[in-house]
Amino acid sequence: MTLTVLFAASDANWQAYAEPLRTALAAAGLTAHLTRNATPETVDYIVYAPTSPLQDFAPYTRCKAVLSLWAGVERIVGNPTLTQPLCRMVDPALAEGMVEWVVGHALRHHLGMDRHIVNPARIWDPTCPPLARERPVAMLGMGELGTACARALTALNFPVTGWSRTPKSIPGIPCLHGAEGLTQALSSAQIVVTLLPKTPDTENILNARTLSLLPKGAAILNPGRGALIDDEALLSALDTGQIGHATLDVFRVEPLPQDHPYWAHPRVTVTPHIAADTRAPSASRVIAENIRRSEAGEPLLHKVDRQRGY
Amino acid sequence: MTLTVLFAASDANWQAYAEPLRTALAAAGLTAHLTRNATPETVDYIVYAPTSPLQDFAPYTRCKAVLSLWAGVERIVGNPTLTQPLCRMVDPALAEGMVEWVVGHALRHHLGMDRHIVNPARIWDPTCPPLARERPVAMLGMGELGTACARALTALNFPVTGWSRTPKSIPGIPCLHGAEGLTQALSSAQIVVTLLPKTPDTENILNARTLSLLPKGAAILNPGRGALIDDEALLSALDTGQIGHATLDVFRVEPLPQDHPYWAHPRVTVTPHIAADTRAPSASRVIAENIRRSEAGEPLLHKVDRQRGY
Repeated sequence: MTLTVLFAASDANWQAYAEPLRTALAAAGLTAHLTRNATPETVDYIVYAPTSPLQDFAPYTRCKAVLSLWAGVERIVGNPTLTQPLCRMVDPALAEGMVEWVVGHALRHHLGMDRHIVNPARIWDPTCPPLARERPVAMLGMGELGTACARALTALNFPVTGWSRTPKSIPGIPCLHGAEGLTQALSSAQIVVTLLPKTPDTENILNARTLSLLPKGAAILNPGRGALIDDEALLSALDTGQIGHATLDVFRVEPLPQDHPYWAHPRVTVTPHIAADTRAPSASRVIAENIRRSEAGEPLLHKVDRQRGY
Repeated sequence: MTLTVLFAASDANWQAYAEPLRTALAAAGLTAHLTRNATPETVDYIVYAPTSPLQDFAPYTRCKAVLSLWAGVERIVGNPTLTQPLCRMVDPALAEGMVEWVVGHALRHHLGMDRHIVNPARIWDPTCPPLARERPVAMLGMGELGTACARALTALNFPVTGWSRTPKSIPGIPCLHGAEGLTQALSSAQIVVTLLPKTPDTENILNARTLSLLPKGAAILNPGRGALIDDEALLSALDTGQIGHATLDVFRVEPLPQDHPYWAHPRVTVTPHIAADTRAPSASRVIAENIRRSEAGEPLLHKVDRQRGY
């Protein structure tokens, strides 16, 4: 039987994915027709990104799963027409890219690189930074990506404390949770990384109150979601020096508008949503594996819990 | 019996080391008199840095070892008056600091951070860099420091090829050696790290010929010794774009003179000899351990081979 797989994402996605997806589906032993146009009632699976015009999932009565191309599903999870199982993208290459961005920018702040990269006065100040083992890091969010980053930073001797909303136990990484745990994690962190999903509970988790808990001069790295940060509060904390620097990869509006104060702030570095990119070949293998599992009656990977929102 | 340990280094060194060294000597069970002034014939051990005026070791007839505070010994190893055993500093904290500098700047080049750190035109270009697994690195020098850096880069998926003058076998890291091996290592490296000792064989190892072997646009990281690079050849290769960027921590003359072309070159980042600093507490423990070994008739750690020069 030939499966009908509807590709509902942007034109650019189609160009990147058509070939790798067909290859991955065949490699998984599936006979599938991958298409951008199909009668809704005939569709077996939907490969989805919110850049698609598809917003009403009700007519897709035969559809067995919606497979997101994105790790973040906040733009689809609340859709009331979506009754089919929804799977997040957990691309192994995405975690690799995220680890590289987080470790790279953590080391950049740790070593104080910027004063050497831009040094028109030719200042030679051989004061050494402390060692990474003397630089506490708080990792807010201990899902696949947060855990991978925490492990990589730990391997470089950074003392990493993980934090998540609900209790987690991860070998080798002390983990805190809940409101009290957040206060404790922030109270000593010189670098804070935000890698939480966007949910009503995590929106503005870095705000005037929580930013004030940090030691003066702490650095913020946000490769997670723009909405995790109260932008006004962060700008105020940067103005006073309470926060020494923020390197931000994600924003409430993207591309970041040209007149946004982040662009001009001397203590902010903007990176253009590049921390973690889904890579077509590895992401296609994840999607094909989930279709194979579904057809074989095996549990889906990375299925979204509608209650939690991720 | 009380040992006389002469501290022959700078005033700044004395301020940093007097207390940690006394602590470490006592902790090693040694009864020692640590001093900056002693009759040469009474001295049992010399703790040494080339910033000391001491250049004639002949009068130190009872001295059982000269213990360098520095990892590099090229400014003392050729001293004809030095007949006592000489030990390099191999400080565990020094390797940690070196790994942080090398991994941090490798990731900086890999991720193309500079165009985000300095971005007055507010350019939002979400083109992702390749993954580290697609960015070959050549590590020239596979001693303690080079090996530690190669391991840390390998853990982040960079394909690292080690190179040393003589054959080495290091689990998990392909190692080349000799002139042919150097050609092979450089031919594919997008990032080259120079962590060789300075010897007549390694001086100017990066020169017009070897720089031309690299793929166009490769980055150079030199936290080793200034003399490993032919400065004129590097500047020419930077001018043509054959080398995309050089981040240099060590120079033939330090501090780097204010009129040196490296300061002004848009493709050069100068860091002020901070890649690896000897840290007094851990370095003091290494020195005390070597004195304990010598007194107990055990072999010295990190003894310099006068033939090889390190």
